[in-house]
Amino acid sequence: MPVTEMDADLRLIEALRRRRGADRAAAFSSRYLPLLDDELRRAVGGLGAELGGVEGAVSRAVGVGGSGGRRWRPLLTFAAARACGGDPAEAMGVAAAVEVTHTASLVLDDLPCMDDDETRRGLPATHRLVGPAGAILVAIGLLGRAGELLAASPREGAELCAEWGRCFGLRGMAGGQAADLAGWRTGATRRLLREKTTALSSFAVTAGARAAGADAGSREALAAFGRALGWAYQLADDAQDEEQDAAAGRRCPSRAPRRHAARLLRLAEERLARTSGLVPEGAELLSAFARSIVPLPAAEHAA
Amino acid sequence: MPVTEMDADLRLIEALRRRRGADRAAAFSSRYLPLLDDELRRAVGGLGAELGGVEGAVSRAVGVGGSGGRRWRPLLTFAAARACGGDPAEAMGVAAAVEVTHTASLVLDDLPCMDDDETRRGLPATHRLVGPAGAILVAIGLLGRAGELLAASPREGAELCAEWGRCFGLRGMAGGQAADLAGWRTGATRRLLREKTTALSSFAVTAGARAAGADAGSREALAAFGRALGWAYQLADDAQDEEQDAAAGRRCPSRAPRRHAARLLRLAEERLARTSGLVPEGAELLSAFARSIVPLPAAEHAA
Repeated sequence: MPVTEMDADLRLIEALRRRRGADRAAAFSSRYLPLLDDELRRAVGGLGAELGGVEGAVSRAVGVGGSGGRRWRPLLTFAAARACGGDPAEAMGVAAAVEVTHTASLVLDDLPCMDDDETRRGLPATHRLVGPAGAILVAIGLLGRAGELLAASPREGAELCAEWGRCFGLRGMAGGQAADLAGWRTGATRRLLREKTTALSSFAVTAGARAAGADAGSREALAAFGRALGWAYQLADDAQDEEQDAAAGRRCPSRAPRRHAARLLRLAEERLARTSGLVPEGAELLSAFARSIVPLPAAEHAA
Repeated sequence: MPVTEMDADLRLIEALRRRRGADRAAAFSSRYLPLLDDELRRAVGGLGAELGGVEGAVSRAVGVGGSGGRRWRPLLTFAAARACGGDPAEAMGVAAAVEVTHTASLVLDDLPCMDDDETRRGLPATHRLVGPAGAILVAIGLLGRAGELLAASPREGAELCAEWGRCFGLRGMAGGQAADLAGWRTGATRRLLREKTTALSSFAVTAGARAAGADAGSREALAAFGRALGWAYQLADDAQDEEQDAAAGRRCPSRAPRRHAARLLRLAEERLARTSGLVPEGAELLSAFARSIVPLPAAEHAA
């Protein structure tokens, strides 16, 4: 068989494998997202009940009942638990903590003194509902609840809390946001800037691994995967913004960031595939989620 | 001996006992506060180093090197550890976490959208140094570091993190601050308002108890003591403000809140004295700190 035909067959096999992964990821999401919604409702229900509009603002920020975005971070947590041989349901509280932490960061990012966004997911931002002070306290309240959820994990509660504290602090998400606001794009600040996204995407997967009792080797491979995914997401997201600018005639977009994002993802998947002891179904789910999360045209993904 | 003379003798004995308690508390503070300062320096040193003025703002907010207020909350943590038969040094990280959490709350309270204070302890408030967004991220960073410190406790890391999450969240400090900002003083909101102070004063003592491996009975007695102390502090502090208003001719202050504060403290001390298994020296330290913390005239304390 000529090389070109073999290449075409291999590409077809790969495409079919990816389609199967995407189908399984969709089924997995359909199964666990409703359970997550129940857990989130329990986790934040009644928070701020004494405080007028605060309780409603908390539920809306978290998106209880369906307006909560794609929830890809907790899906990574479930998939990581599966990849480490665990039952994703065991990671329910931990996955909720990941989503609640993400929500806290969005509430803060939208503040007038930060990114000054009036809407989030098509609805008024939290500070539009309860004022900036109220929004700050909602975010703090959400972090507090996330800590409670992580500490209550049947496995590794203390380790989860330690990693989470680092994840959202000044060497993680808060530091990344500060670097972003400062507008510095060089040296150490550039590395810190990445943490805005990578800290939580990495924590999302290692948290699932910890909830499933994974060994250190699996955890490290998954952490690297989570970091690569977060970084690829940010690169591709920025590229999308740049493309929109280019469409508006402002400048010519470079394809380099997207190529870099695609390469990061591919290397991370290859490392996952090489990590012994991971359940193939879970690793396949992680790959499928990664591909649906990172906004790359199919051509770049296949590259 | 006539009753009045016996009364006078009892009062003298009580006064001497209190003097001894105060002396021991002073010696205890002199011993552990420098160690706490070292721990705080290690805990927050380098945080925000990539971010221009942020690192300095963090150190100043925490008061590393001596401008950090009386540090009565971590002193309570040390004393509680002692009361539960532990070595206060074992509670070092936990005590630092208590102080760092307190600092985070001050940084947020001073924000223009909250209490709008330009100075703290005679120095510019954090938001005056790094802007409101920077101050919010400093506070988040401090909370993250506090979580790491608690999770690293050699004993009960997960339990400490769970209690701490509840302490600073919407059922604790953040909820109390929200109630205060809303200006509601009735029903459930009034109870929540107390949490602004009592949540952390209670956590400070139970954290020390957990670090020392105390049983649930001791922990509960200490938690009640911490709550009473926090509430008495708030009552007496408000009474002081009211007295200043009265001195300015605005209204006639009531003595009721101070009497109530003194009564709360006395009952809490009596409960401590009745709790079996506590080390008397530690309980004496807690009483002495309580009396130095709550701003009551000596006459009310003795009442």
